Amino acid sequence: MACSIARTLDVVGEPWSLLVLRDIYVGITRFDQIQADLGISRKVLTERLTTLTEQQVLFRTAYSTRPPRYEYLLTKRGLDLCDLLLIMVRWGDTWRAATDGPPVLHRHRACGAITHAVLRCPECDQPMSAADTDVLPGPGQQPE
Amino acid sequence: MACSIARTLDVVGEPWSLLVLRDIYVGITRFDQIQADLGISRKVLTERLTTLTEQQVLFRTAYSTRPPRYEYLLTKRGLDLCDLLLIMVRWGDTWRAATDGPPVLHRHRACGAITHAVLRCPECDQPMSAADTDVLPGPGQQPE
Repeated sequence: MACSIARTLDVVGEPWSLLVLRDIYVGITRFDQIQADLGISRKVLTERLTTLTEQQVLFRTAYSTRPPRYEYLLTKRGLDLCDLLLIMVRWGDTWRAATDGPPVLHRHRACGAITHAVLRCPECDQPMSAADTDVLPGPGQQPE
Repeated sequence: MACSIARTLDVVGEPWSLLVLRDIYVGITRFDQIQADLGISRKVLTERLTTLTEQQVLFRTAYSTRPPRYEYLLTKRGLDLCDLLLIMVRWGDTWRAATDGPPVLHRHRACGAITHAVLRCPECDQPMSAADTDVLPGPGQQPE
C-alpha cells in the first residue's frame, strides 16, 4: 500500500510490538524480562522480536555466552520510532487519564521539565498538528 | 495495564483502526468509501468503527435519511490522535522510503511549508524526542 502509515504499521501494526518497543525503550531489554513484564507467550514474543530485528528497529546482543543469552537494543531507526510512544503517552494521559494520575512521567533531559512533547513546524516554528495540516498527493502516490 | 500506551492501544491497537483513522482524517468518511479504500470486510470495518465511536474518537452523522446512510467524523479527541499519523508518516518517509518519493505530502496550513512536524519541549522550546527523554514512575504507577 502506497502509504507511509501502512509501511509503519508493517513494522509495528501488531499491538504487542509497540509494547515490546516500550519495554526496550525503558530498559527492559532481555527476553525473559520482557516476557514477564508483558505476560505474553514466548512464541509471540519471539515472533515480534524477530520482525522488529529484521526491520532494523532492534538489534540483538549477547549479555552472556554460557549459556548464550541475548538482550535487544534500539537502533537509531528504532529510537526514532519511539517518538510515537511519546505521542501515545500524551494522548493517553490527556484523553484516557486515570484518577490517580499518569502512570509514567516524561522528563526532558535537556531542561529537566516533566512535560509532554508538542509538535512544531520546522519551517515556521509554530505549532503543527493533524488539525492544521493538509494532506496532498506526493510523487509516490499510486494511480487509482 | 497502568500504561498510557496500553490505554491508547486499547483504542487503536488493532492495525486497521489506524488506517480507518487515516481515511477519515483525509476525508474518506463514508462506510462504503472506507470499505472500498481499505478492502476490508464489512464486518471488520463495522467493528472498528463501533469501537472508535464508543471510544469517542469518531462520531456518526447521517448524510442521507432515505435510505439512512452515515459518515464518520473525528471528534476533538480523534483529531488529537491523528498527530500519531503525522509521526508515523515522518517515520515511514524517513526509514522506509519508496524510490519514487513519499506517497503523501503534509503541508502546514499556517505557513504553507511541505514538511514533517518535529517534537519540541513546551517548557524550554528545544527539540524533544524519545532519545532525550527520561521515563520516570508517575503517581498512577501500580506497585509491582
